[in-house]
Amino acid sequence: MSIRYARRMSRVRPSAIRDLLRHGSDPSITSFGGGYPDPSLFPIEELHSVFDELLVETNARALQYTTSNGLPELREQIAGRLTRSGLATSADDVLVIQGGQQGLDLAAKLVLDAGDTVVTEDPTFLGALIAFNPCEPTYAAVPMDDDGMDTDHLEEVLAANPDAKMIYTVPDFQNPTGVSMSLRRRERLLELAGAHDLLVVEDSPYRELRYDGEHLPTLRSLDTEGRVIYLGSFSKILAPGMRLGWAVADPEIVEKLGLLKLAADTQSSTLNMAATSAYLRGYDIDAHIARALPVYRRKRDLMLATMEQTFPAEVSFTRPQGGLFVWVSFPEEIDAAALLRDRLLPEAKVAYVPGATFFPVTQQHHHARVSFSGVPDDRLVEGISRFGRLLHETLG
Amino acid sequence: MSIRYARRMSRVRPSAIRDLLRHGSDPSITSFGGGYPDPSLFPIEELHSVFDELLVETNARALQYTTSNGLPELREQIAGRLTRSGLATSADDVLVIQGGQQGLDLAAKLVLDAGDTVVTEDPTFLGALIAFNPCEPTYAAVPMDDDGMDTDHLEEVLAANPDAKMIYTVPDFQNPTGVSMSLRRRERLLELAGAHDLLVVEDSPYRELRYDGEHLPTLRSLDTEGRVIYLGSFSKILAPGMRLGWAVADPEIVEKLGLLKLAADTQSSTLNMAATSAYLRGYDIDAHIARALPVYRRKRDLMLATMEQTFPAEVSFTRPQGGLFVWVSFPEEIDAAALLRDRLLPEAKVAYVPGATFFPVTQQHHHARVSFSGVPDDRLVEGISRFGRLLHETLG
Repeated sequence: MSIRYARRMSRVRPSAIRDLLRHGSDPSITSFGGGYPDPSLFPIEELHSVFDELLVETNARALQYTTSNGLPELREQIAGRLTRSGLATSADDVLVIQGGQQGLDLAAKLVLDAGDTVVTEDPTFLGALIAFNPCEPTYAAVPMDDDGMDTDHLEEVLAANPDAKMIYTVPDFQNPTGVSMSLRRRERLLELAGAHDLLVVEDSPYRELRYDGEHLPTLRSLDTEGRVIYLGSFSKILAPGMRLGWAVADPEIVEKLGLLKLAADTQSSTLNMAATSAYLRGYDIDAHIARALPVYRRKRDLMLATMEQTFPAEVSFTRPQGGLFVWVSFPEEIDAAALLRDRLLPEAKVAYVPGATFFPVTQQHHHARVSFSGVPDDRLVEGISRFGRLLHETLG
Repeated sequence: MSIRYARRMSRVRPSAIRDLLRHGSDPSITSFGGGYPDPSLFPIEELHSVFDELLVETNARALQYTTSNGLPELREQIAGRLTRSGLATSADDVLVIQGGQQGLDLAAKLVLDAGDTVVTEDPTFLGALIAFNPCEPTYAAVPMDDDGMDTDHLEEVLAANPDAKMIYTVPDFQNPTGVSMSLRRRERLLELAGAHDLLVVEDSPYRELRYDGEHLPTLRSLDTEGRVIYLGSFSKILAPGMRLGWAVADPEIVEKLGLLKLAADTQSSTLNMAATSAYLRGYDIDAHIARALPVYRRKRDLMLATMEQTFPAEVSFTRPQGGLFVWVSFPEEIDAAALLRDRLLPEAKVAYVPGATFFPVTQQHHHARVSFSGVPDDRLVEGISRFGRLLHETLG
């Protein structure tokens, strides 16, 4: 048969991250490509106990259907944690979602008609572009610096794009750059969103992985007009294989997102929701996160120190205060994808994600996203050192 | 703020099934509304053992990300079961999905632009309409009789709708009617789909719950042109709270559906996929299903016998050979929604799903969907008897 695909399918294509998963399975390659948390940090013993107590005769409902918005006790617990962290939230503001990624799919469906403009950081999270593309939006991208999205540029971009519907931002330890948005810019972004009456999607899966500096308030906690959808996830603080996250917004928006969730997959796994709820009840997730932070901090420090020692001076990189990613910028004449394919993979046995794919409008080819989270310390130092040596050879 | 929703949101509305979930939680009401499997049949002891062995230090990867198309071993196992049941399938033909519902969302995104026509049975599965609506299709509905979708009518409908893209059918023990499509009609449907070069979505979550009669071949096994997407689910044969199902199609289509899945939610739960794979390896799911069948058969027989004894002659109902649903048709002047609200709920303390919501084009108001699966035997007989008495009062 000749399948007549929907128009959106011209924008649904294999991604660089997908290809990277293949390198991830070759044991001779040290991959800094994934954004995977360190599996040695998963609280597997605690989860063993949780499932042991949960899967008993009297708990058959943990295997049954439940409401599409999520188990009420888990919604309460998520709201409670957010409230304690400075974002006042009630259970009615919470939709349990299939990881942060589903929040992007649902938010896009909520407001985007084909041709509507989404304003993003430049570069931005690839998974968001992948999630938004089926709604066939146009993108407008706002340059970043060390304080995150440049809100002076944002003002110009919004003036030039009256059909904008949504601002998408990863304000904390952004994927791919590792950069966080300053408080001043958070406030300014909300002023501008208010002036143009836009929805703001605040995607913050790394927020609790801060290694230095002070926590900054969420955009949603600064928002007085109910225009922010805040997305968070258990993937980086508990385990990604459970596929649970949250969308937090005003109840009218949560109701609509819940209807879209019902349409998309009925509900998230009752079993995983019940287990996560029992874990939060029986264990101290904040203590668990506090144990993970020094591990990631050390990996970040190791990576940055090794880059400082081994990278040529003309290669720059960000110094993130949290999250999982460092953004490496080569001289402009270097094509990061070609460098990866022709030199880094075959000679240095190291992988990253070429940066071009993170630019929604005009691709820049001389950057790479490097993650320090999923690689053992010794392999991390060795891999980055080989990377540095190869850069000296290439640029020297 | 005044949110400017996407146009699709005018078609994303609370559903009758959602309201029904509320009745489900009132213990004084006997609800025949849900399509829930009987929780006493969940193999909870076996799953306890599976999770007990799975959640150990050396298995951290069960909590990690995996590939978006699903755990390779589970795809193999699903393919193996389907092949043994008469549908030759390789692992490359299988996409693991978040229950059958996600398959509907992905299939719609694959082929439907706004305004494209989906051809369905009349009535059809409400969840499919809910899944398709965000793609803003038009519907054309084909009447059914005791042999399923009337393919003579289908021929006329296709001739009248040259912009049709997809035929959607639940050929086995349809939701909501319980009716199955005859072999002759399956063949004829595929001939017509071939003549019009249409995609066919074969949604068959109840297929393995057959209580009488001979298994009929799947549309996909009869299809020589690769135009069928076959959707199945572990929800009715294992447990819905795991949220796992499969979309089976030719590899080119599976590849595209996999990209849409990546965009929608990255992947299904690694943990639940690993547990289901371990269950299939360690236990005999066919023996498990064989133990469930007599339970559902008895419930169906109890329901049909009680209806025959207590329902007035002018009320008709289907006699399904499998699945979970009986379709009740009242005299045309009866509005099933009003009857439910004004008499059945307050007086007989019984709930069903009013049938109007299952008609995609022209609603008929004098039907109700009744499920026998989730109600204990004694409450089932009592509830249907009260229902019958109330019908005599109402019609008498």
